[in-house]
Amino acid sequence: MCVLRETAANAQAIRECAARGIKAIVLAAGGFSEVDEEGEALQEEIKKAIAEAGVRVIGPNTSGHTSTPHKFTSSFFPLGKIPRGNISYIAQTGNFATHTMRYIITGEHFGVARVVGLGNKVDVDECEILEYCMDDPETKAIFVYLESFKRPRRFMQIASEATRIKPVILLKSGNTSEGARAAMAHTAALASDDRIIDAALKKAGVTRVYKYSHLFQTAKALSTMPLPRGNRVSYLAPSGAMLVILADLCRTHWQLEVPDLEEKTRRRLQEISPTYIRMRNPVDIWASATVQGVEFGYREGMEAVLKDPNIDAVIPILMLTDETGVPALDFIVELAQKYREKPIYVTFSGEKKHMVAAKEFLEKRGVPTFPLIEEPFEVLSILARCRRAMDRP
Amino acid sequence: MCVLRETAANAQAIRECAARGIKAIVLAAGGFSEVDEEGEALQEEIKKAIAEAGVRVIGPNTSGHTSTPHKFTSSFFPLGKIPRGNISYIAQTGNFATHTMRYIITGEHFGVARVVGLGNKVDVDECEILEYCMDDPETKAIFVYLESFKRPRRFMQIASEATRIKPVILLKSGNTSEGARAAMAHTAALASDDRIIDAALKKAGVTRVYKYSHLFQTAKALSTMPLPRGNRVSYLAPSGAMLVILADLCRTHWQLEVPDLEEKTRRRLQEISPTYIRMRNPVDIWASATVQGVEFGYREGMEAVLKDPNIDAVIPILMLTDETGVPALDFIVELAQKYREKPIYVTFSGEKKHMVAAKEFLEKRGVPTFPLIEEPFEVLSILARCRRAMDRP
Repeated sequence: MCVLRETAANAQAIRECAARGIKAIVLAAGGFSEVDEEGEALQEEIKKAIAEAGVRVIGPNTSGHTSTPHKFTSSFFPLGKIPRGNISYIAQTGNFATHTMRYIITGEHFGVARVVGLGNKVDVDECEILEYCMDDPETKAIFVYLESFKRPRRFMQIASEATRIKPVILLKSGNTSEGARAAMAHTAALASDDRIIDAALKKAGVTRVYKYSHLFQTAKALSTMPLPRGNRVSYLAPSGAMLVILADLCRTHWQLEVPDLEEKTRRRLQEISPTYIRMRNPVDIWASATVQGVEFGYREGMEAVLKDPNIDAVIPILMLTDETGVPALDFIVELAQKYREKPIYVTFSGEKKHMVAAKEFLEKRGVPTFPLIEEPFEVLSILARCRRAMDRP
Repeated sequence: MCVLRETAANAQAIRECAARGIKAIVLAAGGFSEVDEEGEALQEEIKKAIAEAGVRVIGPNTSGHTSTPHKFTSSFFPLGKIPRGNISYIAQTGNFATHTMRYIITGEHFGVARVVGLGNKVDVDECEILEYCMDDPETKAIFVYLESFKRPRRFMQIASEATRIKPVILLKSGNTSEGARAAMAHTAALASDDRIIDAALKKAGVTRVYKYSHLFQTAKALSTMPLPRGNRVSYLAPSGAMLVILADLCRTHWQLEVPDLEEKTRRRLQEISPTYIRMRNPVDIWASATVQGVEFGYREGMEAVLKDPNIDAVIPILMLTDETGVPALDFIVELAQKYREKPIYVTFSGEKKHMVAAKEFLEKRGVPTFPLIEEPFEVLSILARCRRAMDRP
């Protein structure tokens, strides 16, 4: 393999590589169709040279690709050791080989399997990488960022297979005139009619997202937790207002159900709480935590709803302040290990330094956390859509 | 003034307070209409005692109220010194006197003027506090959380006045059957038809939000920055993908414009950038930052768009990694001081520890920051709605 970085990345260089028996080339250099007409002409020449020489090429205008199982990267960005994990990225941007990967490593504590920056897709495109990741035992979930589809029909074809096997989450941008203009400058991507794309993606079972942050927040949630079996959530909050606000949002914004609990579960919750709180879903945990201790309240409350067959995922909103006492959080790690089929996503209220410490402690032990109380619900909403796609007839 | 905390908070206690010449009472104790019928009967007795004794009462079921200009709090939660600022909260929850205030103090670095936990609103209600805050020179913006309106007509009446003077941002919850059930358990609030409420709030110029986090993220943005003059944003990103994704979201989700820049601005941006990037709005700053230095690129780029009359607010997405060099950030503080009529909201990409340090540095100097790239746009979207309300005929 050969990585061509500078302006020497031209058709002649490709022919020379081929003559030396090199079969795979990464064209890191930019200055092609994303810049101007001259660049577009150069890119056409490269295309011809590739076809003639019979080599495979990623790029141009790419920051490279990474495979942690192979301990390999072609990225020019000195990331150091990239943690190995089960998340794969296919991206029409170099971010996931550069600054966003730096953020993931330092801020989100999960690892990756394969990461491909597609660049201008003169040869290798998203279809081939998607097909590879679909059958890749190292890849649990596939995250895709695209500004254009090189072969839309083929993509939808592979996606309809892949989405039955593992989650495929896609951010397709450049859908508005504003976005299309920016996309043209970035990767020379042409806007397509978003309604047609949207319908095709739905049919293919692809879960579409719109926020960049969801590409790593959802990945973190999947990397150590199972895909939820459905959209039925139980959450435990230390505040009545939070219970109410989140119940509204589950219904109006997130397509999440907050179902009734089994009689047995309700009885158990009532046992651990003062009688003046009527325990149900969502769970008003603070009276219990005040009377019985913060750890006891959350532990027993979480275990009760984790056991309930009506619940697919559990979100505790931990209250962490010196005034009310900050518990050791091993109990959450233990619950996650005991109830492996149900995801637990943790969020917080209270003192920043305790939230930072809790994130560090829990994420290093496989429990994803989210600083703001809405974030784990948004992630669950996305993953419940992945589940529906996977279970479709 | 007297704070009644325990079960002694009954009608008899109110009469005794009045007999001793006490005019103002905070009923911190719970156990009233939010619990059961017996509690509701007790609350009715209290109501009668209040009317007879001619005292004013906040609560019951409240965590108290705070006024930093008076160096006063009736909260039972030992928060220590609450930082003085220009944001006021009127809330049908105790959170803003307890754990959320703890989070604001330790995580969001802004101060408050008046904070009132309304509780069950047996006497003092949101209308009176809103009227007070409207004319309060210490209050720059009013944030309201309600589960019910005690006097809806009166509220809308005051709100239509207040929203012409300063931003009034409201989260009204309990709008869905799920939320209403939770609200009933929390503050015995009765659900009302949300469509009617929504139309009345719009007419009164109240800016409605749905996420709890927006109650403090938007407050932070307002506490040191001016209300934007409109919804026209310029942002500077180190990544083409971010430019494209955010341009789409501005249009589809946030009702923000990303307008063309003046010829003069474009010329200046082109001067500071290599020619292969065509500079425009949104601003692709990374080539400039790479060639001319990160500080130079962002400083000159930000100043150019801050000067442009087509732009109401500027959002730099700072790339902070050791590999590319982390600049001193004084230049952003200086730009904020020089262009006081335009808000600057900062967000990041790159290494977590540098983001944490940048947040600490900038927020202590009056420049609000947001960890995820979508957050400052969501906040700007809310504040542009406040501006429209304020400017309405």
